[in-house]
Amino acid sequence: MAVHELAPSRYWNTIGSHEPVLTVNDGDRITTSTVDARGWDRHGNSAAMAGNPMTGPFYVKGAEPGDTLVVRFESIVPNREWAWSMDVLAPNVVDPSYVPKLPKAERKRWKINTESRTAQPELESDMIAGLQLPLAPFFGCFGVAPALGQAIGTATSGQYGGNMDYRGFGACETIYLPVFVQGALFHLGDGHAVQGDGEIVGTGLEISMDTTFSLSLLKGQTIGWPRGESEDSIFTVGNARPLEQALQHASTEMLRWLTDENGYGLSVQEASQLMGQCVEYEVGNVFNPAYTMVCKMKKRWLPSKKAK
Amino acid sequence: MAVHELAPSRYWNTIGSHEPVLTVNDGDRITTSTVDARGWDRHGNSAAMAGNPMTGPFYVKGAEPGDTLVVRFESIVPNREWAWSMDVLAPNVVDPSYVPKLPKAERKRWKINTESRTAQPELESDMIAGLQLPLAPFFGCFGVAPALGQAIGTATSGQYGGNMDYRGFGACETIYLPVFVQGALFHLGDGHAVQGDGEIVGTGLEISMDTTFSLSLLKGQTIGWPRGESEDSIFTVGNARPLEQALQHASTEMLRWLTDENGYGLSVQEASQLMGQCVEYEVGNVFNPAYTMVCKMKKRWLPSKKAK
Amino acid sequence: MAVHELAPSRYWNTIGSHEPVLTVNDGDRITTSTVDARGWDRHGNSAAMAGNPMTGPFYVKGAEPGDTLVVRFESIVPNREWAWSMDVLAPNVVDPSYVPKLPKAERKRWKINTESRTAQPELESDMIAGLQLPLAPFFGCFGVAPALGQAIGTATSGQYGGNMDYRGFGACETIYLPVFVQGALFHLGDGHAVQGDGEIVGTGLEISMDTTFSLSLLKGQTIGWPRGESEDSIFTVGNARPLEQALQHASTEMLRWLTDENGYGLSVQEASQLMGQCVEYEVGNVFNPAYTMVCKMKKRWLPSKKAK
Amino acid sequence: MAVHELAPSRYWNTIGSHEPVLTVNDGDRITTSTVDARGWDRHGNSAAMAGNPMTGPFYVKGAEPGDTLVVRFESIVPNREWAWSMDVLAPNVVDPSYVPKLPKAERKRWKINTESRTAQPELESDMIAGLQLPLAPFFGCFGVAPALGQAIGTATSGQYGGNMDYRGFGACETIYLPVFVQGALFHLGDGHAVQGDGEIVGTGLEISMDTTFSLSLLKGQTIGWPRGESEDSIFTVGNARPLEQALQHASTEMLRWLTDENGYGLSVQEASQLMGQCVEYEVGNVFNPAYTMVCKMKKRWLPSKKAK
Repeated sequence: MAVHELAPSRYWNTIGSHEPVLTVNDGDRITTSTVDARGWDRHGNSAAMAGNPMTGPFYVKGAEPGDTLVVRFESIVPNREWAWSMDVLAPNVVDPSYVPKLPKAERKRWKINTESRTAQPELESDMIAGLQLPLAPFFGCFGVAPALGQAIGTATSGQYGGNMDYRGFGACETIYLPVFVQGALFHLGDGHAVQGDGEIVGTGLEISMDTTFSLSLLKGQTIGWPRGESEDSIFTVGNARPLEQALQHASTEMLRWLTDENGYGLSVQEASQLMGQCVEYEVGNVFNPAYTMVCKMKKRWLPSKKAK
Repeated sequence: MAVHELAPSRYWNTIGSHEPVLTVNDGDRITTSTVDARGWDRHGNSAAMAGNPMTGPFYVKGAEPGDTLVVRFESIVPNREWAWSMDVLAPNVVDPSYVPKLPKAERKRWKINTESRTAQPELESDMIAGLQLPLAPFFGCFGVAPALGQAIGTATSGQYGGNMDYRGFGACETIYLPVFVQGALFHLGDGHAVQGDGEIVGTGLEISMDTTFSLSLLKGQTIGWPRGESEDSIFTVGNARPLEQALQHASTEMLRWLTDENGYGLSVQEASQLMGQCVEYEVGNVFNPAYTMVCKMKKRWLPSKKAK
Repeated sequence: MAVHELAPSRYWNTIGSHEPVLTVNDGDRITTSTVDARGWDRHGNSAAMAGNPMTGPFYVKGAEPGDTLVVRFESIVPNREWAWSMDVLAPNVVDPSYVPKLPKAERKRWKINTESRTAQPELESDMIAGLQLPLAPFFGCFGVAPALGQAIGTATSGQYGGNMDYRGFGACETIYLPVFVQGALFHLGDGHAVQGDGEIVGTGLEISMDTTFSLSLLKGQTIGWPRGESEDSIFTVGNARPLEQALQHASTEMLRWLTDENGYGLSVQEASQLMGQCVEYEVGNVFNPAYTMVCKMKKRWLPSKKAK
Repeated sequence: MAVHELAPSRYWNTIGSHEPVLTVNDGDRITTSTVDARGWDRHGNSAAMAGNPMTGPFYVKGAEPGDTLVVRFESIVPNREWAWSMDVLAPNVVDPSYVPKLPKAERKRWKINTESRTAQPELESDMIAGLQLPLAPFFGCFGVAPALGQAIGTATSGQYGGNMDYRGFGACETIYLPVFVQGALFHLGDGHAVQGDGEIVGTGLEISMDTTFSLSLLKGQTIGWPRGESEDSIFTVGNARPLEQALQHASTEMLRWLTDENGYGLSVQEASQLMGQCVEYEVGNVFNPAYTMVCKMKKRWLPSKKAK
């Protein structure tokens, strides 16, 4: 498989059927970089318009609507020594009656040490000065071009991926995305060095990244929502508002995975009992226009082999 | 501190200002038992009306509105060899368009082995026959009498606790509940031997329990919602529909804990940055009339000592 | 039918299985009064604890669980010359990002003229000084004792009625409530002289009332949610959070009314087509713990006679 | 002002920055036609891909981001003698537990009589055979190109308009839309001959239309969400899920209109009191990905003239 290197020269603030920046074969690896959510690059220069500018899109030869795109991130590495974040909880994650007590949010800088792999608040306060968080980098926003020739702003998300801000994407081995257009057209950006569940201050530790990943295809295998696989779990991702609808999408997609013939081949009752007693939910984000909820299942509880 | 033993002879299907079954001193321990969600006892006999019948209430001398009740479960042990559960996902946790594909739910039995501490489906199927889940027992429903002389059905939950179905209550060391009436009036029941996040089949592995716990008071310390503490984390619990409102309640309560003078004494900005990059959310239930969302913070990220 | 007069001497801040204040026969009329939402009576004296204190409960002989209680208000008349209201939108009805711009809410007085049947702001401002709103009095909170011996605070609502704050109850001819306990145990209070849709400042024009109404029974006819009938329409009421769930309850109850054998006897398809092209929705409240949504159908579109 | 006639030859299934089909001056009138939601034209021929294909876009000279586009429909006339609709309530508008009782939805035809201006079910049943509904035609979907070069599918809606399915747009005199791109780029389609609140069978009476409308500009006047004006009312439109968020958007936009210097110049308190006692809410749709809620105020309650 070829390895492509791309130094991006333009960025997109929507995910859509844009002119590909690179065409790759099924299985190829790509080394590239991304700017941060405000468009600031590795040197801190403004290289793109604010609002999750995307690197890409990458066209995968042979990808057609109904296929599944497999994304494997080999490395996601912050490429500068500072990140930024907001410093007050978003008004929609606290009780409406508490909102008047929230001070005005400001942008704060964090020091990123890629050797010790830690993040630390730059502007020290008495109380959180010593905080040293382990880096856990991931891309807040990535996805494939949606159907119908749509181009959708990178603030939100959907079946095609988008601004999911799910930190579990950083540690997982494999990500699956449904393909809606020829070539799939993969976009990525909005790197976070660290982020808690929910992205509840409206940002993670926002930073530019270097990354290497591979893109490959599952021809003729159709999924409804993004899926992923880590060493010990499989998971499905629902993107919608309200949070309950995101949970419904994720749960239904897990049920499909467990019951599909080319999934685990369980009956609905078997899958339900398994999910009922073993399922785990994780909150991706509760800040963006569409929220993200993740439905997870430990592999140890799954049948030892898939049904034929 | 005294140890009281109570063999319950009647049960309540509401949590409210009922006649106490026992009066204890601040710090006393209680050994008692609960029937399962349908009122079936250790012998499988129907001992109470279905719908989460509660053991209690227990009156704690000196407890007054505005205090905090501290509950420490020392043991929660299934006292029979089978549990029951439903076998199909609840219609509200899948996409509305998927609901017609759900078969009719039936009650299924699971074998509970308290020696090997495992649960196993009784009616074996090819695919999940070998499933052996480690027991992780907890009470789905417990709480104190709510304000205003209310008596509220044990299907739902609120600031007073209630049917939260949060499995994290089983492993945690300490639970805090706001006190609304004299004596606090603690109720408990609805034991689950195992349950996944969300109680998405509408039940856990429902079982009768033996339990020992202590009740003590934090006089004059007022909290808004249930809180808890495990070995490595502190957490807050929000109960409401929709799920987003439960998350708002839990997040606001965590913010209060981190910023209160008799909590961790952080500024809102410090607490927000900490939560933004480190917070974890867990889903209690998404089945009951009120959903439950839990907001968690690892102790290792908290300031080394509380503010004066 | 007898007419009973009751001058209340105590009030309840919950709706529940309380000692009846009066026992009446099926069809009897009752003349009584209510205090306002803060417990202020016709003289402006504090006669009850704040929080929608209820007059009642009234026990209807022969009422049993599964019956329907029919309430007909003959008169609802403000019995003093002023009402009060809050003067700023509730934080939950505006965008979370707008909440910091809301000033602190204060209580304001309105002049109530029962001769001209108008309400006018007492504290005049340049801009709304001339506002003269026609009186449209109704009870914000009324209902029957809920099941299970529950006593539920009058802030919220459910299948039993409660704090629905739906202004359409004032003008309608007949209200139907499901009966959950022997005697039905009807409560009422929280009079509003005027109120917009949604009760979005958290109050209507709050006032004490004189009222005459009758209580009668539909034996053996079971409904799921409150229903009503005005001169030109029938309607159903759903009480829940979120608003979508209230709408689901109301819509499902209307579908049942249209399809039930002792309703209009339509098929689901006929009822759906009728509702699809003719249904009207009205917002009761979007302020209380449970919201209220009303599903309405003009009588002119209904089949000319009910099915047998 | 010029009158333009356009016989469309292509249609768009997204609203976005597409090549204009016509460029008009501020104030010009346009006569054109639309196909129905499945792309069927006046002859019943398939002229476009299903999914709310749009006529347009129309470029208005001088329109710039931050302006307001004024749309005045002079006529909206069904141009064939039949419409179609679905015949079963959408699963998301009934209780999840009721969904299994819904039969499978089918497409049904209705006779449209443009002389008597009535609609009647074509496939007669005993119970709704005689139903004759007055025509009340409107466009379910229209709007301007959204910001960022986005192209968004016509299933959903947002600040730019889109698939709002609000029947009140048919009878109102003036519609205001925020302009996000040069030329505004107005699209329209998805004609409904009749529709109830909420579009709860997933469709209105779907039909192709002839229409004449004018497009003009309010230069430098910026609004946040669609607004409208009928003979007796002003209204604002919020598009989002959940329904509560749509209501928040609409309410906040009304508050802005009432308090803005170039609106009615009220204080927040004055506007809140007015809205609190006089506001009306209407449900646009509760079927599409984004729901639509309308906030209305009768002109008779507004200050007699706008503030300078």
